[in-house]
Amino acid sequence: MSIKLGKNTYGKNAVNLSKIIRHPDYHEFRQISVNVVLEGDFETAHTIGDNSKILPTDTQKNTVYALAKEHFVSSIESFGLYLANYFKSNNPQVSSATIEITEHSWKRMQFNGATHPHAYCSGGGEKHSATIVQTNNDITVTSGIIDMLILKTTDSGFENYIKDQYTTLKETSDRVFATQCEVSWKYNSTNILFVELFNGIRTTLLQTFADHQSLSVQHTLFAMGEAVLNRFGAVKEISLKMPNKHHILFNLEQFGMDNKNEIFIATDEPYGYITGTVVRE
Amino acid sequence: MSIKLGKNTYGKNAVNLSKIIRHPDYHEFRQISVNVVLEGDFETAHTIGDNSKILPTDTQKNTVYALAKEHFVSSIESFGLYLANYFKSNNPQVSSATIEITEHSWKRMQFNGATHPHAYCSGGGEKHSATIVQTNNDITVTSGIIDMLILKTTDSGFENYIKDQYTTLKETSDRVFATQCEVSWKYNSTNILFVELFNGIRTTLLQTFADHQSLSVQHTLFAMGEAVLNRFGAVKEISLKMPNKHHILFNLEQFGMDNKNEIFIATDEPYGYITGTVVRE
Amino acid sequence: MSIKLGKNTYGKNAVNLSKIIRHPDYHEFRQISVNVVLEGDFETAHTIGDNSKILPTDTQKNTVYALAKEHFVSSIESFGLYLANYFKSNNPQVSSATIEITEHSWKRMQFNGATHPHAYCSGGGEKHSATIVQTNNDITVTSGIIDMLILKTTDSGFENYIKDQYTTLKETSDRVFATQCEVSWKYNSTNILFVELFNGIRTTLLQTFADHQSLSVQHTLFAMGEAVLNRFGAVKEISLKMPNKHHILFNLEQFGMDNKNEIFIATDEPYGYITGTVVRE
Amino acid sequence: MSIKLGKNTYGKNAVNLSKIIRHPDYHEFRQISVNVVLEGDFETAHTIGDNSKILPTDTQKNTVYALAKEHFVSSIESFGLYLANYFKSNNPQVSSATIEITEHSWKRMQFNGATHPHAYCSGGGEKHSATIVQTNNDITVTSGIIDMLILKTTDSGFENYIKDQYTTLKETSDRVFATQCEVSWKYNSTNILFVELFNGIRTTLLQTFADHQSLSVQHTLFAMGEAVLNRFGAVKEISLKMPNKHHILFNLEQFGMDNKNEIFIATDEPYGYITGTVVRE
Repeated sequence: MSIKLGKNTYGKNAVNLSKIIRHPDYHEFRQISVNVVLEGDFETAHTIGDNSKILPTDTQKNTVYALAKEHFVSSIESFGLYLANYFKSNNPQVSSATIEITEHSWKRMQFNGATHPHAYCSGGGEKHSATIVQTNNDITVTSGIIDMLILKTTDSGFENYIKDQYTTLKETSDRVFATQCEVSWKYNSTNILFVELFNGIRTTLLQTFADHQSLSVQHTLFAMGEAVLNRFGAVKEISLKMPNKHHILFNLEQFGMDNKNEIFIATDEPYGYITGTVVRE
Repeated sequence: MSIKLGKNTYGKNAVNLSKIIRHPDYHEFRQISVNVVLEGDFETAHTIGDNSKILPTDTQKNTVYALAKEHFVSSIESFGLYLANYFKSNNPQVSSATIEITEHSWKRMQFNGATHPHAYCSGGGEKHSATIVQTNNDITVTSGIIDMLILKTTDSGFENYIKDQYTTLKETSDRVFATQCEVSWKYNSTNILFVELFNGIRTTLLQTFADHQSLSVQHTLFAMGEAVLNRFGAVKEISLKMPNKHHILFNLEQFGMDNKNEIFIATDEPYGYITGTVVRE
Repeated sequence: MSIKLGKNTYGKNAVNLSKIIRHPDYHEFRQISVNVVLEGDFETAHTIGDNSKILPTDTQKNTVYALAKEHFVSSIESFGLYLANYFKSNNPQVSSATIEITEHSWKRMQFNGATHPHAYCSGGGEKHSATIVQTNNDITVTSGIIDMLILKTTDSGFENYIKDQYTTLKETSDRVFATQCEVSWKYNSTNILFVELFNGIRTTLLQTFADHQSLSVQHTLFAMGEAVLNRFGAVKEISLKMPNKHHILFNLEQFGMDNKNEIFIATDEPYGYITGTVVRE
Repeated sequence: MSIKLGKNTYGKNAVNLSKIIRHPDYHEFRQISVNVVLEGDFETAHTIGDNSKILPTDTQKNTVYALAKEHFVSSIESFGLYLANYFKSNNPQVSSATIEITEHSWKRMQFNGATHPHAYCSGGGEKHSATIVQTNNDITVTSGIIDMLILKTTDSGFENYIKDQYTTLKETSDRVFATQCEVSWKYNSTNILFVELFNGIRTTLLQTFADHQSLSVQHTLFAMGEAVLNRFGAVKEISLKMPNKHHILFNLEQFGMDNKNEIFIATDEPYGYITGTVVRE
């Protein structure tokens, strides 16, 4: 029984790039982090140290900066498509080129209702992500949101679950529901109005979360995915990861006080972790 | 020469507390992290393990949760004043009680111009801080902002500095100026409209940053502090810490391309770190 | 085209548990973090909020603490096998129970050649991991190492790679090779001397890394995997992730000085990221 | 009442530097992070943007790398003294130059009792720190340890403390005592065998922690500081910060089981935080 190389990848991660796009009356500031991931005919690099088919990750990094000048002009999905095609087309030994881009949000400052032309505040920790995979036969675009920190103070319960000898959780029809959601969805085409769809999908996710009468995290997760698939025909499937950022009622009764869903302990660990994909049949 | 105890403190840190304040037509959600720091007559605890004057940090934590029910109703400064006074008054062995509170920002979701009554998005990583110190003779309130991530794409330069044999930096009259600012200011009273002043001071800081013709980080730091002292008589002094989040021009010339302040490498380390306090004479 | 639930999982993550095992002449201190991940017949929880088949993640957490008393007595793999079987056997709606355990390393302090019976130092950031998956038909055990931070100061080069218009990297026959390696391997049985094999495999990985004449990260990655498969028949396949923690030569020549592989800039980002699986044919 | 600049500093932080020192039979690998902090006559930089007295932080960084070649050859304290003197002597506008150095620990790999000449494992998260301050009149050296993660499973209790209406903590004569200790001590001279003293002081701290019959964190903190001052005349004073990494007994009684100090919940927050300085009278 001999030993051989199985699946393998390599590339440059965390290529942190900022760009100023100068419009006539304001500056657009964009900040992204790019990962390049290549698969292909790299067996001899592993087995005998033959680097003749290896495009160095340092060169990949340089390429991202150089191509950003002309080709990073609108959505991260479009730039990702350009990069994936560049690496795939210029490297015959590559069977699959994956580009992952995460965009940090910056918002122009507002003063007295006016938007400042070149001063920015952070738009928060929530990030827009995109993954483009180009193989010999196929190009797929997956967009998403990372670290979407959302919360509702009511319209959420958790009851009628299994009880066993280790059950101590009390049923509740009214609890805080908080999550740091990660969402990604696959488009059925590469020819999409990426910016418009992203904004529409994000709003649909938030509104469904806000208005849902939640009976569990699972229940709301599915509703959010279903709403996106219902409204956006260009979305093939959607996956959500919803860590439960528990806000636990503090026991005020031990001090002779009431706690009618007022005072909570916010905890990071341990946390419930619910994931699901919603698909079209 | 004998050995003895010098300055010492103890307390509970990171008491993570959430509160829902139920208004007639919406829920207000607040999330804070509280540190309690006590100084006083604790020498025998150290030297002979006598705990008779030690209020356990676990009890401090319980106290914060219990008192939040009635007394955390508006600003973190007001709640901090209540807590500091509680610990100082109820513990004669305490000579100084310090309360540090950091508030996480949550914003009610907006849909079609309407604000949702009970669904929230994270307000980002920027946090409002407050430190209250109550001693036998004095009570001081310091408010501030942590992780104020701001950036401007122009109106910032750095020239005419010292050159020596290790200088490689090129002078520039136009660079990106980005910083993750930490600001704190001391009030000259405990009887302040804390919420209103906080908002006014924050806007003054942002607007000064945005509009300043910056010749260096130092230059803008001072201008920001000076503007606050000029406009807010209740502020005694203000301190700013401004790490320089460098956005370094990527060398496109090596590939035969121009880089007219367009493409930058965003770096975290190393970073310039500028701090300063602006005071009244 | 209707919409339906695809793959989904849920469970409790980051159940942080410490245990003291009292031996006659010393205390054994163990600290682990446990994730429980369940798959199964949970569709109605998602679609209609029916929780009747949901074992709450809070109960999962309680179960881990309760079962640790009798059943966490030796390797994390053995405890994981017990937990996976417990959740699978007691919950007919579960088709697959996965237990992921990460163990933090603690080492008994040494003084003058003697080992202290109950005082510990951290064993560092490197952690031992184990993943057990029990389905209706199968039980698999994967062990591994997380955050194995290793480095060699020579016997590593990178030459003869592709050059193109974006190449600026210089070839070198002698560079620092540093990585924060993540390794995992699948056993072909559940009846293994887990502790002994773990130690043997770890030593093989380290020794191969140390002695290899490395022509690239890929080259060493494969050699490490191959060595483990060669020596340990119980290992079916092994996967390695090797981020390149670059130590970049600082340009001292610009100051009229030599830099013969002496002075380096240690960087975190961007980083080359090389992954590979080595298998038996 | 006019407005003016108060205390201010600037410098480069996180200058991450690695060095290989080539000995005849092995390579010594050192990795440090350096902060430079300057104070002085910088008022006009703040008030009118005059940079003529500003040594750019970029130049400070270059200087650290350049001087490391000849002058970083033994302890970080010695290198820090050289750097502080360099910046102070070459910049008459500087009234105080502070150098902070943190060293990451790397240990040569061991195989079959032999030490490998050039392959290293991380020595863990514990770091050696040094701070040198050179003013017009004075040079002080402070050494220390950061993130010393230590734990004992017995010989620690906490009893006889204050009880009030918010007390829920149970007294215990036997608990886990874990802390991520930060220690720093001031030397009374700059002419010290820094490496030897560091090792001796570290061992004294660990041994005192291990052997102390602890009645509280305060009690052990003082004992550790006192032991160092007793044994090392070159130490003027010592400060310790001891966050209490709580390991809380899990309530197994609710499931009809005993928990005789066996099973604990390891928590990060909230945490008790005890600090103290031990001095000579």
